Amino acid sequence: VSPCFQGRRHEFTSECCNVMEFGFETVRSMKVESGAWVGYEHASYQGQQFILERGEYPQCDAFGGSNAYHIERMTSFRPISCANHRECRMTIFERENFLGRKGELSDDYPSLQAMGWCNNEVGSLRIQAGAFVCYQYPGYRGYQYIMECDRHCGEYKHFREFGSHCQTPQIQSIRRIQQ
Amino acid sequence: VSPCFQGRRHEFTSECCNVMEFGFETVRSMKVESGAWVGYEHASYQGQQFILERGEYPQCDAFGGSNAYHIERMTSFRPISCANHRECRMTIFERENFLGRKGELSDDYPSLQAMGWCNNEVGSLRIQAGAFVCYQYPGYRGYQYIMECDRHCGEYKHFREFGSHCQTPQIQSIRRIQQ
Repeated sequence: VSPCFQGRRHEFTSECCNVMEFGFETVRSMKVESGAWVGYEHASYQGQQFILERGEYPQCDAFGGSNAYHIERMTSFRPISCANHRECRMTIFERENFLGRKGELSDDYPSLQAMGWCNNEVGSLRIQAGAFVCYQYPGYRGYQYIMECDRHCGEYKHFREFGSHCQTPQIQSIRRIQQ
Repeated sequence: VSPCFQGRRHEFTSECCNVMEFGFETVRSMKVESGAWVGYEHASYQGQQFILERGEYPQCDAFGGSNAYHIERMTSFRPISCANHRECRMTIFERENFLGRKGELSDDYPSLQAMGWCNNEVGSLRIQAGAFVCYQYPGYRGYQYIMECDRHCGEYKHFREFGSHCQTPQIQSIRRIQQ
């Protein structure tokens, strides 16, 4: 409940649709003991999303990746089951509905433009294996979108399917998620 | 000068000790056309530092990696000459002055703890080749420290040498820098 691991605590081993049901008004600090998780701003896995990997998060404001879009809270979260760092494969498309120029990804890309992708947007994408985090800005910054082969059948055909808060197809860095 | 690539602009091909000398009061948006750069909060490469990779930064607040430490501005910046993604090598040490348990790194590590590092701190470190970004939190978030084999002879023997703003040895994720 409080920053720096003070106050009420609770250990979770599976998904949580709403921390308020566990008597939490807000989560102020957190330790991830194992696995990779996705946190969400709102209950029922809605709103901004952010990857949570093993380690310590002493301040709630360390959850999000950008100053531009302040995340005040984490209300729901779930483990990512399909994360498999060695076998992640994704195809990105210039336009929606899997049209236009495409690129095959199976590594980490702090700058898509440095890897030869011609613009700052991704119109649609398909995950063949594993799970990725896509970021709005280069260097793994800005809005995050967690993309998994086990969700949406791995198909994200329009930027509105990237996440419930997504308002632009701007994606400039992408990396694999490991357990 | 303004957000979204409006207003006065200037193209830089080498380091800039103080953007105010070019008539800029502040930098509000930016495009990195090639290479990897380090931006600094203050003039003369002081204050918070942040990696700038190829791509578009339409809002100045997208420079920094964390809500917790708001970066209001970028006043100086320089290219990173030694970035060589394929040949980065670093040794991290549990304690200052290269003492205690150590770990050899030559890849990207979104969570040091997931890779077997036992705590949330790094006491000292040595870069044998290339350049890395070290981050305070897992998942490439929080304060950033750019570490290069060409600076300090690649030796960072106390957390105060990590950066002029560094107040803690907390480092929980590390990745290589590519050109």
